[in-house]
Amino acid sequence: MVAEIKEVNVLSADEVLKSWQGHRRLTRRVIEAFPEDKLFAFSVGGMRPFADMAWEFIRMAVPIVDGVATSEWKEFGGTEPKPTTKAELLKVWDVQTAELNEKFPKIPAHRFSEVDTAFGQWKNPGIVTIQYAIDNEIHHRGQGYVYLRALGIEPPAFWER
Amino acid sequence: MVAEIKEVNVLSADEVLKSWQGHRRLTRRVIEAFPEDKLFAFSVGGMRPFADMAWEFIRMAVPIVDGVATSEWKEFGGTEPKPTTKAELLKVWDVQTAELNEKFPKIPAHRFSEVDTAFGQWKNPGIVTIQYAIDNEIHHRGQGYVYLRALGIEPPAFWER
Repeated sequence: MVAEIKEVNVLSADEVLKSWQGHRRLTRRVIEAFPEDKLFAFSVGGMRPFADMAWEFIRMAVPIVDGVATSEWKEFGGTEPKPTTKAELLKVWDVQTAELNEKFPKIPAHRFSEVDTAFGQWKNPGIVTIQYAIDNEIHHRGQGYVYLRALGIEPPAFWER
Repeated sequence: MVAEIKEVNVLSADEVLKSWQGHRRLTRRVIEAFPEDKLFAFSVGGMRPFADMAWEFIRMAVPIVDGVATSEWKEFGGTEPKPTTKAELLKVWDVQTAELNEKFPKIPAHRFSEVDTAFGQWKNPGIVTIQYAIDNEIHHRGQGYVYLRALGIEPPAFWER
């Protein structure tokens, strides 16, 4: 007898965090793979440079985890300047890695399924908002792979996390 | 009192299927957005044309669901020829959409956490193998967005599923 699909739980909060941090380690390697100047200036088809995409991931990650945890939706560090070097970007990245490990496990269980309006705009259950941040990172990181290939640089293996 | 994170179930099989089908609808719109000839020939940085990526998604989706469901890992339809037109590709795509809706809910509950070696090569719990297929689709579809931009074509909105 097959269980009702709606009742089959397939991912725990812990597994989502581990998967996300795996993706974030890969994204970090993609940032590192760019030459400094290309990271902030190179793009294809009139799109944003990869540093702008990475900055978007940073502006979403901890603020979303904070929002899902507390139902307070605040922009990323209003006083933090946008990094202008690879080293600065990676430094903020690594601070977020530790913050996510600390904050994610403290999200109250009921908040994953509770519907809330993220940043006053996107109405979804907490887990959907978190999944959106992860999917958005995978999506744009894939674009960074094209930039690297166009620059003649071999990107890191997608399956290595 | 915050529940133990390892015990907090955040996604059901049904939600994973719905999210995947949402991504697949977006991927279908990306396939449609390509002019016929560009779909099979255009690329950036020496990468594959988007039709080859879409074909990879097709070769992974149902075979992975079959493999997780049954523990038999079979290549996608050994006798099926690779599509050479957009219409053929979309037709196979739509057949898979229906097949996934039929087969995914029949995956036995225990198979999502059970470790199995997908296609004799990748050893992971069933849900991780399924998530890999979804993430791989998001990753390469993001690359298709760059191809479209490089062609001067506005891609479909990422957040619309």
